[in-house]
Amino acid sequence: MPDSRSPSGDQPSDQPVPKVVVSRLSLYLRELQRLQATGQHTISSSRLGHLLGFSDAQVRKDLGFFGQFGYPGVGYRCDELIHAMRDILGTNHDWPVVMVGVGNLGQALLGYRGFGRQNFSIVSAFDTDPAKIGTVIQGITIRDVKDLPTVVRELGVRLGMIVVPAPRAQEVADRMVAAGIEGIVNFAPVTLSLPPHVDTVAVDLAIELEQLSFAVTSRLARGAGEPRPEQENC
Amino acid sequence: MPDSRSPSGDQPSDQPVPKVVVSRLSLYLRELQRLQATGQHTISSSRLGHLLGFSDAQVRKDLGFFGQFGYPGVGYRCDELIHAMRDILGTNHDWPVVMVGVGNLGQALLGYRGFGRQNFSIVSAFDTDPAKIGTVIQGITIRDVKDLPTVVRELGVRLGMIVVPAPRAQEVADRMVAAGIEGIVNFAPVTLSLPPHVDTVAVDLAIELEQLSFAVTSRLARGAGEPRPEQENC
Repeated sequence: MPDSRSPSGDQPSDQPVPKVVVSRLSLYLRELQRLQATGQHTISSSRLGHLLGFSDAQVRKDLGFFGQFGYPGVGYRCDELIHAMRDILGTNHDWPVVMVGVGNLGQALLGYRGFGRQNFSIVSAFDTDPAKIGTVIQGITIRDVKDLPTVVRELGVRLGMIVVPAPRAQEVADRMVAAGIEGIVNFAPVTLSLPPHVDTVAVDLAIELEQLSFAVTSRLARGAGEPRPEQENC
Repeated sequence: MPDSRSPSGDQPSDQPVPKVVVSRLSLYLRELQRLQATGQHTISSSRLGHLLGFSDAQVRKDLGFFGQFGYPGVGYRCDELIHAMRDILGTNHDWPVVMVGVGNLGQALLGYRGFGRQNFSIVSAFDTDPAKIGTVIQGITIRDVKDLPTVVRELGVRLGMIVVPAPRAQEVADRMVAAGIEGIVNFAPVTLSLPPHVDTVAVDLAIELEQLSFAVTSRLARGAGEPRPEQENC
């Protein structure tokens, strides 16, 4: 029972795009990439929505912010829509990224292949620890954070990731802003103060667990204490 | 210019709660926790929405799914709303979590303090690598994945995290489901096939970078090639 309709007959809108719509674009893109990897060429808005837990009206409304992508009787062509989503998100070209903080999580991120698949590449990583500076991790030489402005300028880097402990995050953010970074992914559990021309996204790895504790808790409430299916026959 | 209104006069709704609303609960909770940490006791729906980029109508509508929380002329009391959000998300009590896969990312997650702050605790970690089994990382003894069913049963674990390479993820998921796990956070870049009584959330660390590439790209488009503010005076 969708309660909303595409407001503009699938014409692109001149309104600013709500953040929540942009976050759904990433979800559409991932799902389309998965479908394409399994050999699927087209998909309907209702099927795409169903796979992600949205209504077909929501899918059409979200995509309607950016243009008209579907074909009557066919749905969306996966390759076209992937290309269009990446154009909108800006990821049809490579984005060099700098990272500050090479502890456990930083080292794991240096080896994370999911960045490359979406055209993000960590081109340089920095730390303040003399024991780490000069070492090579996942093919990246760790540099002194003092070199950040030079690297950002020389490589034309616009995005950075902060992977330092919370008390050091604001200082690192200030260094990034001064170096010319325009977007910061913050893994430190602290809210950054940034000038209005710099965007930031906070990563909180507990959010996914929270979504599951809600799902498990509310399923239990619906089932009124019904035992787990697996345990029933033990 | 909000285009939606609380549909039910802030009465709890009997409809199933959309996933996207549940995901916003986590965002509200984090923002309230940050506000409380800075000594703020109350907040209005419009201020809370503003901090997160939502309209006040959206905030009231989302919270209206679960009950009536605000006070006229006061707004929300942070401590009450935090407690209510945690009750809804199921995180007012501890959740033991098992993790399978102790590579770089797994080791980083064992040391990630953000889980404990939301009452999630990794109680046991597993691998198949004999070189890792028996070692202690961040105070956790790494166990053979064969012991998973015993640990899950003995400790009453319902949530698991998969941090293995993509080709091994489905096999690990099957083991978790057979052991009685009901919710899985999947860090592997692959879609899992799971029975309907098991929930899953996929983590994709590139999504945050994508949101920033959109923000930076669309700011550039709006500014019609305007140079970066920092670089202007160099």
